[in-house]
Amino acid sequence: MEAAQGLEQALRESAEFQELKTAYYDLENDASAKQMFENFRNVQLELQQKQMQGLNITEEEVLRAQQQLQLVQQHEKIMKLMEIEQRMSNIINDINRAIMKPLEELYGINE
Amino acid sequence: MEAAQGLEQALRESAEFQELKTAYYDLENDASAKQMFENFRNVQLELQQKQMQGLNITEEEVLRAQQQLQLVQQHEKIMKLMEIEQRMSNIINDINRAIMKPLEELYGINE
Repeated sequence: MEAAQGLEQALRESAEFQELKTAYYDLENDASAKQMFENFRNVQLELQQKQMQGLNITEEEVLRAQQQLQLVQQHEKIMKLMEIEQRMSNIINDINRAIMKPLEELYGINE
Repeated sequence: MEAAQGLEQALRESAEFQELKTAYYDLENDASAKQMFENFRNVQLELQQKQMQGLNITEEEVLRAQQQLQLVQQHEKIMKLMEIEQRMSNIINDINRAIMKPLEELYGINE
């Protein structure tokens, strides 16, 4: 647990988390960009849920998602946040892989 | 990443992981107990998958799962492994919570 808290602290102090905070608040303080980003996320989420439920996605919906994507791609603050969120997500994945390694090694031997 | 490797090392050296290894190999070296445990796991997994797919679980299947559970509960080596696996799983959950805390704090503020 000490090592876990050490990792939490390291994450908190990492350049990536600091960048994420900056990018997040930059967007928070820009009402129109924030709204644009939320619309984009909602459309993405909707399509993902439809896919998971095996529902049909219409051509119109694909078009709408593409349009939203083009909109956000033109917005620097949104792109900055998405990029740093992706990097943070990669870090979290790497950490999870490290944590699961001892277990995978143990269970993998006989499987 | 250094902190993540530190955590991996701490996990590897933890009393719980050592106990898990012992319990795992104790069961590995007991063919009949291992088979009993695998049967139990398979029945559990099957029922979980059915539940997730929203399929009906028959009375017979519930009964079979209960019987399997009673069987493994009588087996010391299996119980030992299940108990330490549960403890290990709690540790992993606690770690994951620690890792996600900075992000949850950041995103939670405005939601």
